Amino acid sequence: MSTATYTVKGMTCGHCVSSVKEEVSEVAGVTNVEVDLATGLLTVNSDGPVAPAKITAAVEEAGYEVANQ
Amino acid sequence: MSTATYTVKGMTCGHCVSSVKEEVSEVAGVTNVEVDLATGLLTVNSDGPVAPAKITAAVEEAGYEVANQ
Repeated sequence: MSTATYTVKGMTCGHCVSSVKEEVSEVAGVTNVEVDLATGLLTVNSDGPVAPAKITAAVEEAGYEVANQ
Repeated sequence: MSTATYTVKGMTCGHCVSSVKEEVSEVAGVTNVEVDLATGLLTVNSDGPVAPAKITAAVEEAGYEVANQ
């Protein structure tokens, strides 16, 4: 069980949150995704470690950006 | 053919625009809906006059508000 956090830029409303959750949830190994609109905090739980590049790609697929860690 | 305009408050992104367009498009008689995110301008084309209350209700159904005219 792994947990990783990212900061997502550009989300403005609940629809944005839903889009990010949907895309990140589809990444292999991901078991749970939480997104806080106000802070942009994205928390990803997974069975094992997931390459950050895969999460970043999913966020971009949704139309947003991950802030530099 | 009638055209009416409204100002919608609270839209922050393209998803919001889509939600408003979808709900307003479902109002009986409405033939075309345009929404400008930057200004909040909602333009409704219809076969004949449509009660403003029906448009306002559709906007609220989408989760937004029509500014006082």
